[in-house]
Amino acid sequence: MVTIKDIANRLGIAPSTVSKGLNDANDISPELKKLVLDTAIEMDYVTKRMKKETRKRLCVFVENMQYEKPGDFGFDIILGFKQAAVRDNWEVTVTPITPLLQLHDPYDRYMVKNSFHGGFLVGFALMAQLETTTIPTVLFDNYIRKNPNIAHVGTDSFEGIDLAIDHLTTLGHTRIALLNGSPDSMITANRYDAYANSMLGHNLELDENLVAYGYYVEESAKYHLPALIENGATAILCGNDLLAVGVLRECERLHIKVPQELSVVGFDNLPIACEISPALTTINQDRIDLGRNSYAALYWLIAKVPISRSLLRPRLIVRASTAKPGVAKVELGQKKHPSDPDGTFLPDARAHKDK
Amino acid sequence: MVTIKDIANRLGIAPSTVSKGLNDANDISPELKKLVLDTAIEMDYVTKRMKKETRKRLCVFVENMQYEKPGDFGFDIILGFKQAAVRDNWEVTVTPITPLLQLHDPYDRYMVKNSFHGGFLVGFALMAQLETTTIPTVLFDNYIRKNPNIAHVGTDSFEGIDLAIDHLTTLGHTRIALLNGSPDSMITANRYDAYANSMLGHNLELDENLVAYGYYVEESAKYHLPALIENGATAILCGNDLLAVGVLRECERLHIKVPQELSVVGFDNLPIACEISPALTTINQDRIDLGRNSYAALYWLIAKVPISRSLLRPRLIVRASTAKPGVAKVELGQKKHPSDPDGTFLPDARAHKDK
Repeated sequence: MVTIKDIANRLGIAPSTVSKGLNDANDISPELKKLVLDTAIEMDYVTKRMKKETRKRLCVFVENMQYEKPGDFGFDIILGFKQAAVRDNWEVTVTPITPLLQLHDPYDRYMVKNSFHGGFLVGFALMAQLETTTIPTVLFDNYIRKNPNIAHVGTDSFEGIDLAIDHLTTLGHTRIALLNGSPDSMITANRYDAYANSMLGHNLELDENLVAYGYYVEESAKYHLPALIENGATAILCGNDLLAVGVLRECERLHIKVPQELSVVGFDNLPIACEISPALTTINQDRIDLGRNSYAALYWLIAKVPISRSLLRPRLIVRASTAKPGVAKVELGQKKHPSDPDGTFLPDARAHKDK
Repeated sequence: MVTIKDIANRLGIAPSTVSKGLNDANDISPELKKLVLDTAIEMDYVTKRMKKETRKRLCVFVENMQYEKPGDFGFDIILGFKQAAVRDNWEVTVTPITPLLQLHDPYDRYMVKNSFHGGFLVGFALMAQLETTTIPTVLFDNYIRKNPNIAHVGTDSFEGIDLAIDHLTTLGHTRIALLNGSPDSMITANRYDAYANSMLGHNLELDENLVAYGYYVEESAKYHLPALIENGATAILCGNDLLAVGVLRECERLHIKVPQELSVVGFDNLPIACEISPALTTINQDRIDLGRNSYAALYWLIAKVPISRSLLRPRLIVRASTAKPGVAKVELGQKKHPSDPDGTFLPDARAHKDK
């Protein structure tokens, strides 16, 4: 059980100052007040005021995503969401969903039963039910058409991919490949469109032989890397950091030097991006801001303002995995992976168009 | 000078109740409090609290747009913005910009000099300066790449056009034309992409002969209508209500019966949409909500959350200008407008692609 003293020690200030911050006193600066409140949330300290107002409740659903520890993708998103929500005196409950742990009730009944005013879903569960939900609900990286109770929040793929292609073309790359995620995801489709849009915007040829789908799975890199290099790629833009890590590891296996022979760019800026060698150039999604913006969208949905999409601007973080173009050499033997004899994993740019 | 009594009369409640609402008293319901505050803003009543806090200032710039009277496109946007901003004790100044009335200073200096913390621009002025501004600024229906101090707010064209094409295909239309705005506007490009996306999504042929650019000018309808009908259009989706009004008037001139021979859909739901005959089926942009959402985006920009885009869901409002498909007859003589001998206004779907 966290106490005011714990917060005081963490911040190196007097406990009395902490309680001033928690109790919204006037003789403490707004900045310090904000810091105290943010730290209290981060340390799971519950103020009396929060305890009192149990009528105002929001629920965050997390599906198959790490969120317990700092550095977990979900941790900062939820932290940012809570830090913004507490200012309006919301009580926030986090409910993990897994194939084994589903809701016992239909979504709407579950929310009403537990007197949740709104939901924030990080993951892809519950989609069928959300088509018609009447509960204000914000989806991270997902979208449902024609339901004014649903908002989509995320990061602006167009701006992110455009920043990365700016960077690569400035270095001299023209054969830039896209190793994308799962063809059936909206984000994958967005990132493909952003890639196509930016390549054309930079007067570069859009060559579908430089586009592959890696299902956001690190291992998929080995299926695609040889073909992409074979097709002339000098740089590979990856749908997320996991795919980029897969590419870096496969390059090591194939003795392809990064960045001398191949430049690699990720998306997300997960902690591993700066731990791996070479450190990964990647497109940063600020997860605290994503959480704050998700709360903002939910706030307006609850106020009956039908937010459709609310996206953040990403930043490009340049590290050691990108440089002037070189030429990678791949032995023929590596071109197709043994466990993929009929090449079903080979690039297919049309797949996502079915969606 | 508006008084508490005026507000009381307008709402039919006691002046004492009004002042309770204005002074955030506890013995008055939140709903009534909200109503009193909204009405005070609408009637330009300035509370003492608002007068006190002159440090917190926002500026709304309106370019070449009516906003003084209820029903003006800009009026409700600004009203919604003010109603949301006042809750956070912002003082909002509205500054019209015209070719004759420009800012004397560069934008950033102007904002700092007048101690404005942020700006909301309804119009297309100042773009060059906004490329690099450091002042949090929200743009209605406009976007600037790679400046994290700028956010784009508006209505989700994809959802709006998709709702309209749902409606028209349900009625049996397959030859649906798009009479779009100015090829050089971002919104025009969005609406073309939304149209293409939705036509393909409804398994309808995307025929560039059914796409024309009307520059958001009512008169342009006469240049395009004959060609679009000649090319088989049984329904015309217009980039805004002005273009749709132009189409309705041109149909009257050419003795084309709407909706029996041609269905027409607008975009915006301006007051004229229900005044004209036949009343216009159109895609509604809720201008109060646009204003509230614009304030929300500016709030987060000021809090250093780099909102990129924040869009609202539109609604389709079905009136008398759409029905089952018929066949319009146009005399050859009308096919090309005399003042357009070389047909420079004829459909050109590629124009906006240059942007």
